[in-house]
Order: sequence, then C-alpha cells, then structure tokens
Amino acid sequence: MSEDKLRQLALQVRNWGRWGPEDEIGTLNYITHATIAAACGLVTAGKVFALGIPLQRHGPQSGTRARFNPIHTMFRDGGDQPKDAAEVVAMQGYGGSDDWIVMPLQCVTQWDSLAHVFDSGKMYNGYDAALVTSSGAERNSIDKTNNKIVGRGVLLDVARYKNVPRLSPGYAITIEDLEGSAAAEGVDVLPGDLLLVRTGHMSGYLAKGDWSHFDLDDSPGVSVFTAPWLHDKQVAAIASDNYAVEVRPSELPPFRSPFHICAIPNMGLTLGEIFFLEELAADCAADGRYAFLLVAPPLPVTNAVGTPINPYAMK
Amino acid sequence: MSEDKLRQLALQVRNWGRWGPEDEIGTLNYITHATIAAACGLVTAGKVFALGIPLQRHGPQSGTRARFNPIHTMFRDGGDQPKDAAEVVAMQGYGGSDDWIVMPLQCVTQWDSLAHVFDSGKMYNGYDAALVTSSGAERNSIDKTNNKIVGRGVLLDVARYKNVPRLSPGYAITIEDLEGSAAAEGVDVLPGDLLLVRTGHMSGYLAKGDWSHFDLDDSPGVSVFTAPWLHDKQVAAIASDNYAVEVRPSELPPFRSPFHICAIPNMGLTLGEIFFLEELAADCAADGRYAFLLVAPPLPVTNAVGTPINPYAMK
Amino acid sequence: MSEDKLRQLALQVRNWGRWGPEDEIGTLNYITHATIAAACGLVTAGKVFALGIPLQRHGPQSGTRARFNPIHTMFRDGGDQPKDAAEVVAMQGYGGSDDWIVMPLQCVTQWDSLAHVFDSGKMYNGYDAALVTSSGAERNSIDKTNNKIVGRGVLLDVARYKNVPRLSPGYAITIEDLEGSAAAEGVDVLPGDLLLVRTGHMSGYLAKGDWSHFDLDDSPGVSVFTAPWLHDKQVAAIASDNYAVEVRPSELPPFRSPFHICAIPNMGLTLGEIFFLEELAADCAADGRYAFLLVAPPLPVTNAVGTPINPYAMK
Amino acid sequence: MSEDKLRQLALQVRNWGRWGPEDEIGTLNYITHATIAAACGLVTAGKVFALGIPLQRHGPQSGTRARFNPIHTMFRDGGDQPKDAAEVVAMQGYGGSDDWIVMPLQCVTQWDSLAHVFDSGKMYNGYDAALVTSSGAERNSIDKTNNKIVGRGVLLDVARYKNVPRLSPGYAITIEDLEGSAAAEGVDVLPGDLLLVRTGHMSGYLAKGDWSHFDLDDSPGVSVFTAPWLHDKQVAAIASDNYAVEVRPSELPPFRSPFHICAIPNMGLTLGEIFFLEELAADCAADGRYAFLLVAPPLPVTNAVGTPINPYAMK
Repeated sequence: MSEDKLRQLALQVRNWGRWGPEDEIGTLNYITHATIAAACGLVTAGKVFALGIPLQRHGPQSGTRARFNPIHTMFRDGGDQPKDAAEVVAMQGYGGSDDWIVMPLQCVTQWDSLAHVFDSGKMYNGYDAALVTSSGAERNSIDKTNNKIVGRGVLLDVARYKNVPRLSPGYAITIEDLEGSAAAEGVDVLPGDLLLVRTGHMSGYLAKGDWSHFDLDDSPGVSVFTAPWLHDKQVAAIASDNYAVEVRPSELPPFRSPFHICAIPNMGLTLGEIFFLEELAADCAADGRYAFLLVAPPLPVTNAVGTPINPYAMK
Repeated sequence: MSEDKLRQLALQVRNWGRWGPEDEIGTLNYITHATIAAACGLVTAGKVFALGIPLQRHGPQSGTRARFNPIHTMFRDGGDQPKDAAEVVAMQGYGGSDDWIVMPLQCVTQWDSLAHVFDSGKMYNGYDAALVTSSGAERNSIDKTNNKIVGRGVLLDVARYKNVPRLSPGYAITIEDLEGSAAAEGVDVLPGDLLLVRTGHMSGYLAKGDWSHFDLDDSPGVSVFTAPWLHDKQVAAIASDNYAVEVRPSELPPFRSPFHICAIPNMGLTLGEIFFLEELAADCAADGRYAFLLVAPPLPVTNAVGTPINPYAMK
Repeated sequence: MSEDKLRQLALQVRNWGRWGPEDEIGTLNYITHATIAAACGLVTAGKVFALGIPLQRHGPQSGTRARFNPIHTMFRDGGDQPKDAAEVVAMQGYGGSDDWIVMPLQCVTQWDSLAHVFDSGKMYNGYDAALVTSSGAERNSIDKTNNKIVGRGVLLDVARYKNVPRLSPGYAITIEDLEGSAAAEGVDVLPGDLLLVRTGHMSGYLAKGDWSHFDLDDSPGVSVFTAPWLHDKQVAAIASDNYAVEVRPSELPPFRSPFHICAIPNMGLTLGEIFFLEELAADCAADGRYAFLLVAPPLPVTNAVGTPINPYAMK
Repeated sequence: MSEDKLRQLALQVRNWGRWGPEDEIGTLNYITHATIAAACGLVTAGKVFALGIPLQRHGPQSGTRARFNPIHTMFRDGGDQPKDAAEVVAMQGYGGSDDWIVMPLQCVTQWDSLAHVFDSGKMYNGYDAALVTSSGAERNSIDKTNNKIVGRGVLLDVARYKNVPRLSPGYAITIEDLEGSAAAEGVDVLPGDLLLVRTGHMSGYLAKGDWSHFDLDDSPGVSVFTAPWLHDKQVAAIASDNYAVEVRPSELPPFRSPFHICAIPNMGLTLGEIFFLEELAADCAADGRYAFLLVAPPLPVTNAVGTPINPYAMK
C-alpha cells in the first residue's frame, strides 16, 4: 500500500532528464539571472537575518545514529604566547590562536545534496548509488551547487497561519496549509523560489535551552503529499525549522522518510534542515513582507553529500 | 627599528573603545542598514560569483605548520544500501549517504576572527589573550559576526592595474597602488566597504593545478604601511587571493605578520584569505563594474577564531 | 575540612624529587628488570586475557562533558575496488581498505599520564601546569612511559572478597578491603606491582549490553584514604573496572576527584581506568592464581596526557 | 606474466578453510598456549624494547595518498585551571588536562588486519570484499585478533647478515637471506613465530631526524617469492622496519603490492609495518639472543582494518 502510493508520487514528480542527462543540481535550475536580480530588489531596509544555528558541543544531534555535534578544538591559544620582549623576537612577534573542527556535514543548519538519498539504488537523474563510495559522491555532490543557492526566499509561516506557537509533533502540513499561509501573507509562490516553511517546532527547544532529542522526537513537517504541489510550483528548494523538513512519524510506513525519497532522488529538490526562523518570522509578521533575498552558499566540499550553512535572509 | 615602526603604526590605527568597551566585531561596525541596502541595489544582472575554493585533500595547506587540508569521509555510502525489496522494507526504505569532515577553520577561503592574533598579550578592544584557552575564545570569536558580513564589495584589481598577470612574490602593495587601482576602475572606497584586493598570485597555482607550497611561498600582498589608509577609509574588511592578505616576506622582520598585528588586534579589522577572484575579476574587467553586493556569512562556530566561507559576489 | 584532610593526605604521599628533579614517570620507577623477569616467570599456561574494551560508537562516554566515544571511518572500502581485469591492471592490482579514527585518548580502557591532573597549579614532581598548553604537555606526558608499563599484575577482587557480584555505587574500598582481598587470595602486594582492583561495577553494564551513563553514574571505587597504603606498598600503578578508579560520589566534597589529586600530581602514581576484568577474574577464581604478567604498552603519542590501551594479562 | 606468477604464488599459499569456514585470524592460529608459555620463558634479563614510533605531526605519512600523521589536540590544558582558592572550590578542585586524537589506523607502527587487502574481490577465507563498507569490515576486522598477538618474536637482522648499515632501496630479500640470517644468528624459525625482519631502512630517516617521503621512497623489503617459505614455516605474523614489509618498487608490476596480495587475502598472514627495531637489534647483536617474548596487543576497534601498536619485545 505505502509502497504503491510512494511509487506513484515519486514517478509523478520525477525530473530525470528535464535538464539534460548530465544535470546534477535539479530544481536549482529554476533559479535564473532574472529571479536573482528581482530578489535583490526586495532588499530595501538593509536588515539581515542569519538562519544558521550555532556549531557547538550541545546541539541537535544525539549521536544515537551516526551524526554527532561539532567538536571544536585549538591548535594554539592564549597559553602559547610569547611572555616577554625576547620571546616576541624569537617567535617573530607571533602571538595568536588557531583552531579546527570535526563535524558531520549535516549536523547543523544545512543543505542536503542530491546524492544524499537514493530510490531503488538510483540518485537524481538516474545516476547509480554505487557512485557514492567511501571517497564521496562522484555525481550530485554538494560542490556542484557552488554558486547556485541564492534567490527569492519566501517564508510560509504555517504555525502563525494556524494560530499556534508551534504545530504539534506528528502534524503533517498539507497543500491547503501552504496555500492558506501564502494567501494570508499575500505572497505568491513563484518558480525558482527558495521556500522556508516554519512549523515553530524549534522554538520549544530554544525556549528551554536544550536541544536534547531534537533529532529523535516526533515533529511537525510537510506531508509527503505536498510533493506534487512543490513540483507544480517549480520551487528551487525547500527548508524548514525541524530536523528533516518532513513530518515524523512517517505517513507511509515502513518508509521512514517518504518525502525525502520523492524530493531528492526523484524531483531533484534541494532540502534545507534545522533552519533558525524565529527572528525572521517575527520581522515578517511585523512588516507584513514574507518575500526577501535569500543567500545560502554551500561550503564547496568536493564530493560531499551535505553542507553546513549560515543562510542570510535580507530585507 | 622594526618594533618602533610597528608600534607606531599599531597605535595609529588602534580602535579600542571606539564602539564601546564590550564591542567584539571592530570595523564591521562600519556596515549599516544603509550600506547593505545600497549594495543590494548594485545587483542588476543577477550574476553570482562564488569566491570559495574547493575543500579537498589537495589544497593550499602543506601541513608544515599546524594547518592541514580538509579530510572528508563517509558514514554511509552506496555500498550500504538495501539490495532487494525485502531489505527496503527492513531498512525502512532508507537508502542514502551521509558524511563528515575534519578541518582547520582557516584551511580554505576564510575569515579571521578578531581573536586570531594578539599584540603584546592583548586582543582587539583590550581583551586579554588569556581569554583564548583550549576551550576557544571567550571574546572576539567568529560567531559574534554571525549576521554581520554582508555589504558592498569592491574589487581592487592591482595586478590588472599594474598590467601583469600576477604581482611578483614579495611585492608590497602600496597606498598608491590601491588608490591607482580604484581610480582606474572608477570606484571610490567608502566606509563599510568589503575590499577585495587581487594580486593574481593564486592564478599561478590554479594554472598548474597544484597548490603545493601555497602557504609557504613568498607572495605579493598589501604593505603594512597601507594600514593607516584602510583605517582612514573605514573599510569593514579586507580580503585577498593570497595566503595572508599581507606581503611575504615581511617588511618588518623579525615580525612575520606585521600587517596582521596592526589590523586584527589594533584596528579590529576582519581579514579574508585565499579568496578565489579570477572569474569575478574577468567579469569586472569586461563590464567595468568593480562594486557589487558581497555576502559572506561565517559559520557561527561558538568560540571559534576563524571560519571557512564561500562568499557570493553578486552583480 | 575536606581541604585540610586532602592537603594532609597529599603531602603524606608526595614523591616529588624522590627519583630526581627531572623524573617524569613517578611510581613506574618501582618496576625493575628483576620484577619484570620474575613476572614473566609466572606465565606457565600460556593463557592471555585482553583487558581493553571495544572502541566503538556505543561506549562508556556520554559526551556530556568533553569526552565522546571513538568515531571510526573508512578512507577506502569494498565499494572502491577494481571491477574487472582491466581495472585490476589500471589500479595496480590494488584492492583494499583503509580507515581512521577520531577519539579522546581517555575514552576507553586507558592510562592517565602524570600530566592529567594538577594540584594547586602543579604537576607531579613540581612542574608547572602552564607547561600543558594547546600543544600538549611538555612534561609528564604519556610518551615518557613508552617502554615502562609491564610487570607483575595482581588482581584484588574486592567484589568476590565481599561476596557480591558487584560493590554498590558509592561504596568506598578501604585499606582493610584491599588487605583482606589479598589475604584471601594468598597474594602479597609487592613493590613494583601493577594492581588491578575489581569492583564488579562494569559487569552490570556488560550484562545489559548498554554503557549508557557509565561515566556519569555513581560507582564503587577505592577510597581516597587508601592512598597512604598504596604509597607504603610502593605499587607502580593501580587500575580498576570503573570510570575513575576512585569512588563516586567523592568522600571529600567539593573535591570531585580527591584520590586523583593525591595519586597523580603528588604520588606520581599511574592510574588505569575502564579495565575489563571479568574473564581474568573468573580465571583467577578458578585456578587460585591472582598474580600474573601484565603487559600494557601505551601508544607513545608525543606530549599526550593519556592513552588508550589493550593490556594483556598472561598466566 | 606478472599476473600468472602472482596467481600461482597466491594459490600456493592460500589457507582458505584451513581453520574452518568461519575463521577470521588466519596464521595467528599457529600461536598456541604452548608457544606463548615457551616465549615467556625466554625472558631472563627483564629488558623491554618498545617497537612503536612516536605518534606526532611529523611522521612517516606524506599525506599524498589518504594517510596523514596523527593530529593530537587538547580539550583542556594548563590555561583552563582554577586561579585561586575560591575557584578551586567552585571547580571542585578540578585542575587537569584532557586530550584527543585524529589518526589513520595505519599511520604509525601497526598491524594490518586480514580485511586490509583483497584478491579479486575476496578477503581471506573467501569472504566478499563487499562486506567492507563505510561502516567498516564485517569480517576479518582487527578486533577479532583482540587477545591473539603475543608469542615468540624472532629478529632476522638481514642488514647485519649482509654486513651493511641498511639494505638498498629496491633490494628484495630472498629466502636465502632469511635462512642465512637465521643460521648466522643460531635461531630456528618455528611455527607460531612472530618474525621481525630488519632491513635497516628506517635508520636512515632516524639519523637525519626527518621522516619525509618514507611512505613514497623505494625501500628494501621481502620478496614476493618468500611467501611460500613463510607459508611452509607456519609463521604467525611478519613485521619489518619499512613502510610495507615488501620491497618497493614491486617485483611484479603492474601490481604495486604483490606480497600483500599473497600474504593477506590468501595466506591470512598478519603484517606489521614501520617497526622500530634499532635498539632491539643492537641488543641482540650484543647478547647473541635473537628470540624473545613479543607482546603486541591491537587496539580492539570494532570493524577496523588496522591498528596502531606499541609492541614490547622482552628478553
């Protein structure tokens, strides 16, 4: 049953070949010079909202599965400095610090690459999953999106539309919710838009100052059945303030992430996760402007399947 | 001799207290809502130039000192996928890949934080170097710049101005070079600008496809004596296509990095290093427009002293 | 009160200068050629007990404080192999795998170095704590023990002596317990012995197959008041099957680890933690022989303050 | 030609099934209680030689291929300590340091597991190479040898036998060399022996204090044609003071490591690399005793394909 429904949705939104047999960026192709220039025109106040959460030991990863929180450490610090004038000379005046990090590429606010999820052993555009080895992804890796992730951002504040501080865990956001939010905000979803869907889910963890179980808890998120609507609207990417964009638990068990399967390997849709939307949402509610410039460059890690980001929403 | 000259320059450009005793971002304070909005107005063509170099094993770090090139690895890959329908069910349909990275925060295109370099045991704004421990920087860390690094970018293409493909290793860029480049380009350097200085140095390594010794070789770069000019111009940040912004070898031995000492702990100037400027420079030469929107968000790593970035220059 | 008691104990067992002003290995000096040769003579059956726990993602570290469990990953795996004869030639016949690890040096079965704990800003033998910087420990680092950690091992099975499967969390093992165990086992504790104290605490976690909270839970362990006895007996090292050798919670609050403070910076006693003693203990109970050869080489990590180990007890 | 010769050698030494269809440790099965007890009887002087090289940034890995040198770093150091009595109380008396490491498991003195090299897509005992994924090796991983790597060590000092400080790069050690060395030393190679072959190659790098290119340079090493002799002798493991046990360049191009292919996937022979043999060799030359107890425990990293070690040779 689940498999049939998922299969039907997946084929309905499949974009393989749409941008040629060599394409590796999928729906980011909807972004054009024109949409970028227009998005920049939306910036009138000079306000900037950073949508990335902090990278630190206490974060949203429980470590239960593979992902852990970032581990930051120092090469040199204030304890390694020259102590007097003679040492200043001996050390070439070099007093400073330097640091490094160990982190999963999807441990904080992030983009999934189109190599992140497979459907029946295939990636987006039909590439074989076997092209992803311990050396990384030969196809659809995140560095292929190097200069591509910028355009008009649109916040669909579904929690606000439904008049709740946050949607309930397990609540599946419907097409009607997305359209209702857009209508209430007076914004049209256009081809090439970078859609930010606010569930309010993160606000609970921020309020208590504790990320524990964020990656394990049920959460609200988009329904797998919104995939055809996103396909029709020709959005370039979709991001949310929860762990996986889509609702948990799954609407189509035993598939744990059916929306991922529709979106990534079939539609070629870039997903953004763990976006911090609270300040931006408050500002949009205040000025009534839900469209803005969104600039969210990936780190161009060669052959990587995800990237941490700190997107800027600018109004 | 060197020490006296350096001391004089350092005090001349010192901005301690200028933005209050608690300030941690220095010259980024020159960026305002107005400069950001104006910068967005420069984007008319919708073109995007990504200025970050790839993160990969073969990169600009020799490992001779502490920094090494990024090490990218996989949690899961195409070898870990369900092999048949039964396994798809058993694995909850989950075929995918996941990855992580180990990297110095200053191993690729990057921003230095104001905790990166000390002068006589002090950081920018007078904070003690002892506040940087193995736990990171309590003050002036990069996450304090979270939503701050965006504004008007100005490319000063000094190599082009001097009519050479690349300046010679050891060439110290002067105030006259900077002013001459700006004049030739028809651009004024304004308060809050993010200045990109092109030496052409990186182009040699790109041409041979080999980064070896990039961190060790002599290179062209700005003279320590440009510090007062940058101070007067009230630039928000300066970045270049070499390893350390400043010229190597040093003009003021035994100090290895005298410009760093003037700029970071004294002026509170954010430095950007290893910027990929070739495509942007070619475009500026073609259309004659050397000012643009520059969006270069840091990764907000708590208490970190640097950050890898992928800045977008947009025209 | 606590402070006075701790101070008195610490001074009572202090070995500073005992082996000269340059010594960095403390009580390991009690081990001699003669004690090693004699220990080898104890091996008659050829049985080997490996005392190291597995290095894996699910281990005794909760990550609540700094330490995390080992993160193991692959450079190359079975997915990166030549697929046919032509590829075998092209790849120089090279089909293989390679891997790496990220781990705290004290995340599994381990030795603490004498640079691990300070008393009033000093390390063992009076070295200043400031000699431990982000570059590691200039003095008392684990690599100084490179060929030193081998000798007669003696298992004091206190849980068995007290006739319980495991001592209760919070139970402080006394001098009487140690002497009673030795007497019951018919073994004398001699100068240079490597003492293994079994509390049985680990057996509970092994039985349920879950290490959760092992680093956080209260546990049985040696009393801080055993320090003078260990000092008099001239043991070379002491290890146990709990997280920190000593009892939790502390007998001398607010000091969290008073035994550590006596043992490491004052006595110069090497501590071993998280030792897997179950199989060895069963064998000792069966054959009545509680003394054996113990070989527990450190990884000679330059300037490190701890090392993972896999000690061999041989009978 | 090469392929035929290699194929013939490989089949000649193949031990698949010899110790049952589930065996994962190969020739380590030659070690018995009796050989271990006898080896312990060789220890009369109580002397210990540590055969592991230091783990540090400057080591034998060039980073040209995947492997890099160990990266050691601190969680806490002397800069993070309580500064006065009040802080001692507040910090629970906790002054100390803690550290961690990032390292390839085969970056220093090491054992290869039997999952390290494949022959035609198969591991030792016929297990499929596909069982080694980004999650590690399901079969033949190093933790399977947990308590197995101890026995009689025999040093065959071929450099000394040939009367040179070190064999020439490219020199292939023959069966005659091995037998000649043993005869000159008055030692018989017995079943279950852990053979240490000294080429003297490492001594050149140690003398200049520079490991550069150790992993890339040509080196002396055992000939692929010694494999049948090792097979007949029933040695348990073989180790050497070079990078790969076997001679570089290969005797059977285009195969880069033909001895590895014979030894690991076919014979199931454990290989040890980068062993520090200089002090041990000097002692053996002095006392004429070339057999000793060798204790070389692996770190039991779950599913790993190699392990760093610090073997103890004891006489």
